[in-house]
Amino acid sequence: MPKKSEIKLLGTTASPYVNRVQFALNLKSIEYEFIEENLVCKSELLLTSNPVHKKVPVLFHANKPPICESLIIIEYLDEIKSDVHRILPSDPLERADNRFWANYIDNKFFPLYEELRMTIGKEGKEAIKKQIIEGSVLLEEVFVKFSNGNDYFGGDDVGYLDVVLGCFIPWRKLIEKYNEFTAFDEVRTPRLAEWTKRIWSHEAFKDVIPENGTIVNFYMILQKYKPPRVV
Amino acid sequence: MPKKSEIKLLGTTASPYVNRVQFALNLKSIEYEFIEENLVCKSELLLTSNPVHKKVPVLFHANKPPICESLIIIEYLDEIKSDVHRILPSDPLERADNRFWANYIDNKFFPLYEELRMTIGKEGKEAIKKQIIEGSVLLEEVFVKFSNGNDYFGGDDVGYLDVVLGCFIPWRKLIEKYNEFTAFDEVRTPRLAEWTKRIWSHEAFKDVIPENGTIVNFYMILQKYKPPRVV
Repeated sequence: MPKKSEIKLLGTTASPYVNRVQFALNLKSIEYEFIEENLVCKSELLLTSNPVHKKVPVLFHANKPPICESLIIIEYLDEIKSDVHRILPSDPLERADNRFWANYIDNKFFPLYEELRMTIGKEGKEAIKKQIIEGSVLLEEVFVKFSNGNDYFGGDDVGYLDVVLGCFIPWRKLIEKYNEFTAFDEVRTPRLAEWTKRIWSHEAFKDVIPENGTIVNFYMILQKYKPPRVV
Repeated sequence: MPKKSEIKLLGTTASPYVNRVQFALNLKSIEYEFIEENLVCKSELLLTSNPVHKKVPVLFHANKPPICESLIIIEYLDEIKSDVHRILPSDPLERADNRFWANYIDNKFFPLYEELRMTIGKEGKEAIKKQIIEGSVLLEEVFVKFSNGNDYFGGDDVGYLDVVLGCFIPWRKLIEKYNEFTAFDEVRTPRLAEWTKRIWSHEAFKDVIPENGTIVNFYMILQKYKPPRVV
């Protein structure tokens, strides 16, 4: 097991991509040192450790080269500590299916929330909400298939898609509140509505949830530096 | 080893994403049946097997559910046939590094070629060419690091990044020809210039290279259905 000082995570607690790495580290009982990044004035450490994207999270393991991108970090953690809480399943087909839906969540579903934040105008916003709701109904079907009657995408315990989608809960809640709607509601997506509560109170997730003030502050920074636009 | 009839690949030979799966199948000596897709009038098989993205490649393994997205398919093939020509290295840190640069190639570098095709106007085109050349110089550095004095990103034989970047060679050549420039040239990127020739004549890649007519036809279809725009 890596010693505390062996693993360092550079990030900000307001980032869902950082939160998901923290969630994975907790699931694997890996202690780590958290280095808070200032995203308005990026640190030399961030710029030199992720010169291509200049984004958090960045993971440092002992004196090895840094590892970037949340999904890559999670696979790395799952590989170096495969004996504790496997996050990806071992079956190749199930692994492929998990990776497919993780890409869907990261590249299609969650970007709709950012698009919603960026859009000014009722009509434009309603069109995006509709797409989010369609995506939620699709994810409900994915949940039913993956959970197979159990509580999580991963079955009887938290798996890859629980980590990937779970980390967006705080951001989803915030953006949905400002836009007066709920994507995972009890009528359209009853299983995901239940799942959201379950992840929220999960032992390994509890200390990962950013405080409301943190996330609201970050939202305000985004509104200032990447303001909504009329479409 | 999977029997010939056990593996089917739905795709079009003009697609670099399909080519990379063919390259991987050849490296692993997996026989497969190729099902040609018509991308102008998509088949029922494509629409039902990849309803989310409606894109090739799609891999069918025996009577299992279909697998979509080229990088996911390659990892799948590497996992089900790990005894022949490992494509990803076994070291977790090297795996992470390979995945990082594969994402860079797919999400940053190669999309610049599509942007170049789509752009009308000398100034706009020159700006994109500059970015492509900067990306090529970066990839030359990556090659030097990964190859460690050997012939391939994978070291002494074809690895993950050789497959990922290699499949773009025919498209790169075509778009560079139409735009009168060369990204991997012998002055700026001597190692990648050599590497390009090496991949082009590699035994497992030779029968994957689309005929010039095929790729030009596909280019013309793209020009018609997704025409360039003035920026």
